[in-house]
Amino acid sequence: MSLGEFDFIGRLLRPLARGCPGALDLADDAALLDLPAGHQLVVAKDAMVAGVHFLEDDPADLIAGKLLRVNLSDLAAMGARPLAYLTAIARPAGIGDAWLELFAAGLARDQERFGLSLVGGDTVSTTGPLVLSLTILGAVPAGEALRRNGARPGDLLFVSGTLGDAALGLRVLRGLATTEDEALALAGRYRTPQPRLALGEALRGIATAALDVSDGLLADLGHIMAASGVGALVDPARLPLSDAARAMPGAMDCALGGGDDYELLFAAPPAKEAEVKAAGHRIGLAVTRIGRLTAEPGLQLLGSDGRPASPPASLGWRHF
Amino acid sequence: MSLGEFDFIGRLLRPLARGCPGALDLADDAALLDLPAGHQLVVAKDAMVAGVHFLEDDPADLIAGKLLRVNLSDLAAMGARPLAYLTAIARPAGIGDAWLELFAAGLARDQERFGLSLVGGDTVSTTGPLVLSLTILGAVPAGEALRRNGARPGDLLFVSGTLGDAALGLRVLRGLATTEDEALALAGRYRTPQPRLALGEALRGIATAALDVSDGLLADLGHIMAASGVGALVDPARLPLSDAARAMPGAMDCALGGGDDYELLFAAPPAKEAEVKAAGHRIGLAVTRIGRLTAEPGLQLLGSDGRPASPPASLGWRHF
Repeated sequence: MSLGEFDFIGRLLRPLARGCPGALDLADDAALLDLPAGHQLVVAKDAMVAGVHFLEDDPADLIAGKLLRVNLSDLAAMGARPLAYLTAIARPAGIGDAWLELFAAGLARDQERFGLSLVGGDTVSTTGPLVLSLTILGAVPAGEALRRNGARPGDLLFVSGTLGDAALGLRVLRGLATTEDEALALAGRYRTPQPRLALGEALRGIATAALDVSDGLLADLGHIMAASGVGALVDPARLPLSDAARAMPGAMDCALGGGDDYELLFAAPPAKEAEVKAAGHRIGLAVTRIGRLTAEPGLQLLGSDGRPASPPASLGWRHF
Repeated sequence: MSLGEFDFIGRLLRPLARGCPGALDLADDAALLDLPAGHQLVVAKDAMVAGVHFLEDDPADLIAGKLLRVNLSDLAAMGARPLAYLTAIARPAGIGDAWLELFAAGLARDQERFGLSLVGGDTVSTTGPLVLSLTILGAVPAGEALRRNGARPGDLLFVSGTLGDAALGLRVLRGLATTEDEALALAGRYRTPQPRLALGEALRGIATAALDVSDGLLADLGHIMAASGVGALVDPARLPLSDAARAMPGAMDCALGGGDDYELLFAAPPAKEAEVKAAGHRIGLAVTRIGRLTAEPGLQLLGSDGRPASPPASLGWRHF
């Protein structure tokens, strides 16, 4: 027996809306939300498809968590605080009640952790694979949002946490052998991104440009370069790798070109470097300077011989 | 040759964001919007799947328009004014550039017509059918939103426009024979809903409960009854049918049970009937009184003999 749409909404989704009066108990045509005074609304929407953005047999609660977290990561990259979210689920017949219950449990766990509520959405059936989309709503003090377009030549380039883990985690889940502990650490990074919300908030007034690393370091750096009209010089020797990543073949390629890490990549003037480091210390999150922005257009990687060179095309570098 | 995600966004979607500075040219992690002073945010999200919510061979511009309009209809039902929208598109390989161009053209036409802009979203690939979702953002003066839960026994029940056309239109598109003019009129009602935004706004302070008829008159009336804790008595002889519908077999069943009409169904106290009619006149939209709400729970239909009776189960009536 399968839950109908109304049962799914009533029994599994409505409890996720209890914390937010503006959700109107998911019983109205739309949600009704107040924005904190002096704030702007920050809104983003990401979609995920089974077999493309997650593995078909990934646990449903982790899929739900990833869906929420990749969207929260967009808020982090804007320096915004989460308010609420809406989901749309296109559900194939093979997705049964147990799967939906686990999915709702994953949303419940992470929405509590990140302090937001479900406020609406839609559930439909599909003959194809599971398609999920989530719209995230957040708030940022007016005029203080982090953007991608403020970086200036001479700004230093930083990244939070470690890079390449998620891409290596996907290889682990696809069967690449490693030790048990390393496998779990890397797979966890692929399945359960950590949106860097506290860092994003701390970087307001400090970072001149910021985004989250979802496509891969070099591809996402290209977005900052395009938006800000600058070039960049990156020192691969400075890229932060986790211990688990260091033990894996191809770790450097994954750090440069792999996606899904959801760390923040951001620029700040040299005069603000101490503030950047203080923010990282306060939050308990590693923040590493990996290069700087240049007036000359284009991206250069510092070679082991100390000379800059263009990156190989194989690393997701396609914007310039 | 097929447009990549970045090309699709850059060439076809970015122009749809030009009218809204807060869209940040679709080049940032999220959109950044100001809410008009003294207003609340109204937000809804609907999904549509090819073969379920529209026909695979429906013209792409009409699919785009329907996607936008069914969401606008949710704003209408809340008495809200549109601000902006986000889309997520899960695109099968068979959806080519020409289809995407026509889809974007449909969004362009209707966003101009209804005065809103695209501000974000996501485009992903899928091995299954086309899945579309849209998040609509609107604003309503604080405390003035139309809800479903304010209806009281004795309130009159009204519906805008005509009922049953969309369900009949779907039959026409599936090959049911009729005259050319009627076929076009009905198919248009299925493919191109008219969100009743002006009526929704006019009903603020008048209607005690309101929603849009998407599941079918009786099913949606059930939502008002449940939310407001009232019963209802509906006179089928009063249901507004279009001329095209009257010429079709099964028109009354479609008016009672067919979905997709996106008319507003609402309640108002008898003392406000003149104001309701004046609002309809001013807007140029028929508004018909079709029954009243009762203290006795449950739904009754007035029979041709003048006696109330329970509706047949075949009409989408399943909530009580």
